[in-house]
Amino acid sequence: MSDKSRSQSKDTRAQYDLLFEPLKIGPVTTPNRFYQVPHCTGMGHRYPRSEARLRGIKAEGGWGVVSTQETEIHPTSDLTPSNQARLWGAEDIPALRLVTDAIHEHDSLAAIQLAHNGLHSANRYSRAAPLAPSDAIVDGDDPVQARKMDKSDIAAFRAWHVSAAKRAKEAGFDIIYAYAGHDMTLLHHFLLARHNHRTDEYGGSLENRLRLFREVIQDTKEAVGDTCAVAVRLAVDELLGADGMQHDAEARDIVEALAEEPDLWDVNLSDWSNDSQTSRFSDEGFQEKYTGFVKSVTSKPVVGVGRYTSPDTMARLIRKGQLDLIGAARPSIADPFLPNKIRTGDIETIRECIGCNICVMGDNTSSPMRCTQNPTAAEEWRRGWHPEVIPRLADPEPVLIVGGGPAGLEAARALSQRGADVMLAEAGNSWGGRVTLEAALPGLAAWGRVRDTRLWQLQQVPNAELYLESALTAQDLLDYQMPHIALATGATWRRDGLGRAHRKPMLFLDQNRVLTPDDLMTNGASAVASDGPVVIFDDDRFYMASVLAEMLADAGKEVIFVTPSPIVSPWSERTLEQDRIQRRLIEKNVRIMPLLTLTGMSDDAVTLACIYSGETREIACATLVLVTSRTPNDAVWNDLIAMKEQWRDAGIKTVTRIGDCLAPSLIAMAVYAGHSFARNIEFEVPPEPMREDVGQIP
Amino acid sequence: MSDKSRSQSKDTRAQYDLLFEPLKIGPVTTPNRFYQVPHCTGMGHRYPRSEARLRGIKAEGGWGVVSTQETEIHPTSDLTPSNQARLWGAEDIPALRLVTDAIHEHDSLAAIQLAHNGLHSANRYSRAAPLAPSDAIVDGDDPVQARKMDKSDIAAFRAWHVSAAKRAKEAGFDIIYAYAGHDMTLLHHFLLARHNHRTDEYGGSLENRLRLFREVIQDTKEAVGDTCAVAVRLAVDELLGADGMQHDAEARDIVEALAEEPDLWDVNLSDWSNDSQTSRFSDEGFQEKYTGFVKSVTSKPVVGVGRYTSPDTMARLIRKGQLDLIGAARPSIADPFLPNKIRTGDIETIRECIGCNICVMGDNTSSPMRCTQNPTAAEEWRRGWHPEVIPRLADPEPVLIVGGGPAGLEAARALSQRGADVMLAEAGNSWGGRVTLEAALPGLAAWGRVRDTRLWQLQQVPNAELYLESALTAQDLLDYQMPHIALATGATWRRDGLGRAHRKPMLFLDQNRVLTPDDLMTNGASAVASDGPVVIFDDDRFYMASVLAEMLADAGKEVIFVTPSPIVSPWSERTLEQDRIQRRLIEKNVRIMPLLTLTGMSDDAVTLACIYSGETREIACATLVLVTSRTPNDAVWNDLIAMKEQWRDAGIKTVTRIGDCLAPSLIAMAVYAGHSFARNIEFEVPPEPMREDVGQIP
Repeated sequence: MSDKSRSQSKDTRAQYDLLFEPLKIGPVTTPNRFYQVPHCTGMGHRYPRSEARLRGIKAEGGWGVVSTQETEIHPTSDLTPSNQARLWGAEDIPALRLVTDAIHEHDSLAAIQLAHNGLHSANRYSRAAPLAPSDAIVDGDDPVQARKMDKSDIAAFRAWHVSAAKRAKEAGFDIIYAYAGHDMTLLHHFLLARHNHRTDEYGGSLENRLRLFREVIQDTKEAVGDTCAVAVRLAVDELLGADGMQHDAEARDIVEALAEEPDLWDVNLSDWSNDSQTSRFSDEGFQEKYTGFVKSVTSKPVVGVGRYTSPDTMARLIRKGQLDLIGAARPSIADPFLPNKIRTGDIETIRECIGCNICVMGDNTSSPMRCTQNPTAAEEWRRGWHPEVIPRLADPEPVLIVGGGPAGLEAARALSQRGADVMLAEAGNSWGGRVTLEAALPGLAAWGRVRDTRLWQLQQVPNAELYLESALTAQDLLDYQMPHIALATGATWRRDGLGRAHRKPMLFLDQNRVLTPDDLMTNGASAVASDGPVVIFDDDRFYMASVLAEMLADAGKEVIFVTPSPIVSPWSERTLEQDRIQRRLIEKNVRIMPLLTLTGMSDDAVTLACIYSGETREIACATLVLVTSRTPNDAVWNDLIAMKEQWRDAGIKTVTRIGDCLAPSLIAMAVYAGHSFARNIEFEVPPEPMREDVGQIP
Repeated sequence: MSDKSRSQSKDTRAQYDLLFEPLKIGPVTTPNRFYQVPHCTGMGHRYPRSEARLRGIKAEGGWGVVSTQETEIHPTSDLTPSNQARLWGAEDIPALRLVTDAIHEHDSLAAIQLAHNGLHSANRYSRAAPLAPSDAIVDGDDPVQARKMDKSDIAAFRAWHVSAAKRAKEAGFDIIYAYAGHDMTLLHHFLLARHNHRTDEYGGSLENRLRLFREVIQDTKEAVGDTCAVAVRLAVDELLGADGMQHDAEARDIVEALAEEPDLWDVNLSDWSNDSQTSRFSDEGFQEKYTGFVKSVTSKPVVGVGRYTSPDTMARLIRKGQLDLIGAARPSIADPFLPNKIRTGDIETIRECIGCNICVMGDNTSSPMRCTQNPTAAEEWRRGWHPEVIPRLADPEPVLIVGGGPAGLEAARALSQRGADVMLAEAGNSWGGRVTLEAALPGLAAWGRVRDTRLWQLQQVPNAELYLESALTAQDLLDYQMPHIALATGATWRRDGLGRAHRKPMLFLDQNRVLTPDDLMTNGASAVASDGPVVIFDDDRFYMASVLAEMLADAGKEVIFVTPSPIVSPWSERTLEQDRIQRRLIEKNVRIMPLLTLTGMSDDAVTLACIYSGETREIACATLVLVTSRTPNDAVWNDLIAMKEQWRDAGIKTVTRIGDCLAPSLIAMAVYAGHSFARNIEFEVPPEPMREDVGQIP
């Protein structure tokens, strides 16, 4: 949130009252203006209890409407192995009833996003031929084509959608979507001229292309509109210019043509990478200029998104009539209690979304989502973790935490909440560890919120002592006589090149001309001593090498990006950033050299080898930046282990490594490790650490 | 199989008797020498009933030993979302008991491949830190590192393995593996010097690096060796030269060191792409020169693989003492009844594996496997399909099938098996359709088996009439007065460039200089009229463009391979071929230009645009080959639909499109479509078309 809102006191919260006004949506009424729009969780039909508990917690946290993720309506829309919601038949109702029950328990509305994914689904499980307005190859790389729907197919699709809507109603949903968005659904494919080459009444003119969407909205209203609101989700711009749908062209015509037909307009950008832009590439409210027109065209309620975490911004949007409902996906994951915290004036305790899209990674790896800010995400059911409530320790003992990075801060915060006296010692002169270093890199400033929210909470409580510039040795730790010690000492980027493509250290390196991300994060571009070309060798494959390349290019360096991968930052496809990252590096004149390993280094060059042929070539290189992997900072741990026989006399009961000093990973995993440590400190072995979400639903 | 074996009569089958001799494996005895080695199915713990039925069918078909796929033994080895077998705890036993019961029903032995995947697993579900001999980043692109195991971790791992072995025994398995292969398991990582940088007694010398493997074998024998055989699976070569394990160096030392310790040696190549080479890149028996030494070093039974489908070869291997047991994964998928067919002398009816690795695609997409030759694969439980048995029609009516490609041939074959009179009409002068065309391309000759096995069977039966050079019009079909018609008329490669990157036809093409795969398959390289450079534009992204590039390069053409993908043939990563394909094109001097779309064509050039920046460039181009997508050949269908009111008078009850003429896809899908048509011809709507494999196992 902005500094402005952070400084507000509780007595000014009346200005947010309009966020808590009920609103009628067709036949139902939402208690407030906080609307968790449909978003994936990586759980869906595969982990139904986990899914239900996650949604229920959001209702508990004050979201007036809580939606599912996209819900497959038929085996011809089969996204296997993706864990979407599924409503192929009556047998899928019980899992979804778990979801609506969990939401209704807190008097919120439950919304379901029915979806047929058209040429976006390869139907790997059902083996049905995918469906599309025209003959087309599916949009992934699956060797499968979709077939052009004839009139009987269109009739069948409408019937499936009606059946699914009825099943959704039976499952207890209050709001039922027709979904034309993200270039991912049949209804969207019919709208888009590039997919719809039909010459019948469902193709050609815009009126024809929107016929099916109009029919499905009407079908749904007729089928369930007596008790359920019918919402549409429409992408109003694709950021493709004239090659795609535009908010000031056809999209406006569509909204005008259908203005009063649905009970709610949920409007956003397409594709998903445009809708869910990260903080590296966009600011809060980035969708406003595209979705702003909608309210002026319809009298129906409008919901939109834009990674909103600032209550001031939310109130302004309602007040000026830009939106009726504040849509949120990621901010509701980072803090399921965001609405309640605004209502009670506890704005400072909001865990603001940092816009990193680690949550999106869950869906894109078909595994339960995680969140950098909220370590309880997707753990609500299987580990019984609540984002706000954590049991107080029956008999709290003091805990010494070494290292003030994300793991240490979260461990300290959560333990202080549990009632333990916490001492947090950081060797450096600032808090946050890698978070602080990385937040200084181009585009990553919002990541600092991981530190800020925890530090602020620690500063409010009486049972946490915080010490900077307090490097501790193993002997110091023995001397402190603390029963529990957590080591959160982080990790260090390797200087020897060991990573994925090179499993052994590179023996040819001239260390005088080698830098690591730590060098560059600590000293900035001035760490580069020479004016000559800088070669960044990336075998890490996520964001780090790309932000360093940006930083060095911004500093005027000649940068060559070498990687064994075929593209820059391949893992960032999972966070929807890859395209933007590579485009940005090209714009900044970074030379990209993929599919190469590093096999030699001379005075002014490095030798590269093709990963396929082994053929080598030399390129000029004054400075080599190695972004490969990290080494845990486990020196204190090793020293302590060597002194294990002295622990008892020193009153030490447990010593635990958490976060990167155990196994380097994401910041999200460090936060998770800190939280997990705090949750389980009283147990020698965590009791029932993880419930398996399998088996029949009653 | 070879022509030689195909010509053998039943009275010569005594030569195969040695394949049916029992063999003692530790405390258990296999009834014969057919050994289905561990292989993935894309089903595993997620689809347990489907998995069990698939394995049971193999036992029914005569495989003396039937193994599971790799079985995760602990949450620190979590391959989510991959559908491996899972044995994390007692709750996983019931699913595996379904498997052993299904195998024992036919008196075969059940084997389980216990696995801890070390740095190969990212633990996306359990969120545990992966484990490795030394600090290392995981081998996928997940942003996660594995941590170096200390002595307590090693002790824990050994205990987990013992617990899993005991659970496996409780689940009814007869053979229990310790698995050191494919660069995918902790036991393999400890063996390999590039992963094991330890300086304690588990690292350094080979004796130290194999210590853990030895201990685990001993642990397992102590835990379950009284009633279960303990097998090892060891990769004896990695095809990395001196950078990896070699069969004539350390691998031999390992087998010598542990020669008599396990009850069975299962030896193969690593990594998986070397172990499961396709027919495009290797012949039957390709592993013999690597695994051949093992029998000379140990007295224990040895099993090895090599895509064996020839009974003569199998018998020879046993006779000359190369192997004791014929291992098979893919051949057992293509024909689960291969052993029984050899036993009964029905060798001609064997559906020989074509070595295409479409089966592997299942595991690599986390979805149930499919097989080009065996359309019942993974359908045994959910659709109730048996690979050899198909119910006879109660009241068979004649069926006319138009098109003698893979869909038409399989439909005709299966319908004739069901007792229907079948007329199969092919417009061309040869059978096989696309199979025959594609089998003539470099490396794909074995694909012709899809045609051969079906054609042979059709030629044996009295109720199938086969007509070549019989193009039929819709009017012809009316005149024939057949109650059921299937159209299997295939598809045609597009000439307009429409595909994934280009969703609208390219308007700039000079069709005089455009060729499609059909042109090249029909006329060979002579379809290229000019001597100038040939640009292949690949937006199909699987094998086709790459084999055409090979063909043209072999014909001496200058070939430029342009694709919007970052690599050649990205989908072939799913069939384990991508690395070999790109390497081969480089060897043949094909110039590879990735990440480009096609935006213009002039008299002697094409214009390409960067998919990121849009920046364009021209390259010389005399001939442009477009490999993008296909159009169904549905002219006859459309004509028939237009005459629908005449069907009744013509005695036509049903007309069905099957295979590519409905929706272009894999050959495997065409065979599947033909089979599915034959299975369901008597139903207006297939009864219970697909059972959902969910819910508690009793």
